[in-house]
Amino acid sequence: MSLETEGALTPVPMRIGVVAPPWYRIPPSAYGGTEAVVAALVDQLVARGHHVTLVASGPPGTAAQRYVRVFDEPPSDLLGISIAPELIQALESRRALPDEDVDLVHDHSAAGPLLAGASTRPTVVTVHGTVDGINGDLLRRLDGSVHLVAISDAQRRLAPDLNWVGTVHNAVDVASFPLRRDKSDDVVWLGRFSPDKGAHVAIEVAARAGRRLILAGKLNDAAERSYFSEEIRPSLGPRVRYVGEVDAAQKRELLAGASCLLFPIQWDEPFGMVMAEALACGTPVVSTPRGSVPEVVRHGETGFVCGSVDELVAAVMAVDSIDPDACRADAEARFDLPVMGAGYERVYRLLLDALA
Amino acid sequence: MSLETEGALTPVPMRIGVVAPPWYRIPPSAYGGTEAVVAALVDQLVARGHHVTLVASGPPGTAAQRYVRVFDEPPSDLLGISIAPELIQALESRRALPDEDVDLVHDHSAAGPLLAGASTRPTVVTVHGTVDGINGDLLRRLDGSVHLVAISDAQRRLAPDLNWVGTVHNAVDVASFPLRRDKSDDVVWLGRFSPDKGAHVAIEVAARAGRRLILAGKLNDAAERSYFSEEIRPSLGPRVRYVGEVDAAQKRELLAGASCLLFPIQWDEPFGMVMAEALACGTPVVSTPRGSVPEVVRHGETGFVCGSVDELVAAVMAVDSIDPDACRADAEARFDLPVMGAGYERVYRLLLDALA
Repeated sequence: MSLETEGALTPVPMRIGVVAPPWYRIPPSAYGGTEAVVAALVDQLVARGHHVTLVASGPPGTAAQRYVRVFDEPPSDLLGISIAPELIQALESRRALPDEDVDLVHDHSAAGPLLAGASTRPTVVTVHGTVDGINGDLLRRLDGSVHLVAISDAQRRLAPDLNWVGTVHNAVDVASFPLRRDKSDDVVWLGRFSPDKGAHVAIEVAARAGRRLILAGKLNDAAERSYFSEEIRPSLGPRVRYVGEVDAAQKRELLAGASCLLFPIQWDEPFGMVMAEALACGTPVVSTPRGSVPEVVRHGETGFVCGSVDELVAAVMAVDSIDPDACRADAEARFDLPVMGAGYERVYRLLLDALA
Repeated sequence: MSLETEGALTPVPMRIGVVAPPWYRIPPSAYGGTEAVVAALVDQLVARGHHVTLVASGPPGTAAQRYVRVFDEPPSDLLGISIAPELIQALESRRALPDEDVDLVHDHSAAGPLLAGASTRPTVVTVHGTVDGINGDLLRRLDGSVHLVAISDAQRRLAPDLNWVGTVHNAVDVASFPLRRDKSDDVVWLGRFSPDKGAHVAIEVAARAGRRLILAGKLNDAAERSYFSEEIRPSLGPRVRYVGEVDAAQKRELLAGASCLLFPIQWDEPFGMVMAEALACGTPVVSTPRGSVPEVVRHGETGFVCGSVDELVAAVMAVDSIDPDACRADAEARFDLPVMGAGYERVYRLLLDALA
């Protein structure tokens, strides 16, 4: 633990109710970015001396002192088919977290915040998704006792009128990522095959920079397959390789060995977790200034934030100037799990003090 | 209006908040069984002297004295993709229907009943879907102020422990269906191409009875297409015709002209609307004893309820013994819109009297 984290240990433990989404285990067995964040947060809060009640589904998988198991197994097969699991989860979490038992509720589910108005204690909601369109419409209508946490300042700027109480970046377990100082010349791109993620831009940039490109990621639904067939497949060959979906170990190997993560994101993604993972491996990030990127990448220190394809090409050719140890150190200082734990603890404390 | 309906006119008007699902217009422009029932119910309640506030989306389309329009147009494109419309609808309906403005709320949405606990007035919820599995789990957890109405006694028997307050059959606008006394020899089957709906049974029964069979219905998703290809298409020919999806006018023409509706349902469907539509046309129903069938079809008077394929074959050959006028009269007496309006009015009154 860093000095900052230790210094933040609170003298007064809080009683926190954490509500997970109903769809996957906590932590998730495979995919589930939000679920991984929830699991890590619970463990961090317990490590910091707080009492956590976790409301979730499936076998217990965190350090929470009390576990309320809504479904024996998460009803993943009903995702997109029935909203009943969300509604049941909301009713059960309201019942499992009576006002006298918790100081506040931190709700990561979709329907749970609907019932915040029936409670006297504050509810913190982390906005894991987008804040525009229908999601913003919903957040705007929640009870005033619901306080929102952004996962980046960029996300917050897209809807400044919402009831924000703070920003806490998502985090990764930095120690679980290998720091490697001797990199190959390859560049790596990792993500879903959606045009928004910019794999087609990565292909152009790598080619012009004279680097071999490794693409890795999920290729499941019809839109992803069609984009891949039209924009990606024609470029595959010895200089552009697609290695399929990768597991946790393969991801670490890929990120650690690459000269850089090429992250030419084409939309205002609230938080790009793979950037934090690359930095944890001591791998610089070459990226575009969209969404959370300017907050995550320190231009010239841990990578480059580039406004054009020309700049991206030049950046890829200049990544050797970035020190892997600086990337790793920045990941530890800003995107490690204890930092996220301390960030949420600060938000809770702020809120309870303000309401006291 | 029948005498019974006039007799039920209440001396004391009620103030009723009706909450529709958010996904389609009320009434629906095309599909939407629940939406059609909601629209008809609103109009019936107004005709009976009550004050109705309808919370729905899209342009106003009912006689409701007050209309709260949540979305300018229903967000149908988000169905199955985002639950935010359901949650917004729930929050807006709670806000639009303060306790002092309505005597009770009749909620047809999925998420709305979650907020019933925050209210002092009773909420009536019609269970339009199934009551087993996850839906029953949800209904079982709702606040005690939520009173459920079944659309058939059969539905109610599948979950007798739920907080039922009554049964009100769905209804059709009988006057909009043509009564025809001179029928062809053809039999008609009308529905979705799901094995549960028994089109493959209808083919066998019609063939053995020596009748020509007309199949009509939706054929959209992958499961429907696969069932159709394997079980239905090989039998198509001069004696088994598939006429595609039918509109309201074509449906009436088909039902009115057929010697019977063949309805060999293979599951406990809560209410089979097409049976009421056939009866309204003076067309007998030949069916299997599942779900609402024994409540809807009067065996030997308006059709036959048959426990085996042999019995179905014999029934198809005996449908001439059924009087079209008896079918029409039964539809008017039990499945016409004013009957449904009176049924719900009785439920509301019962509830308000019990709580007074």
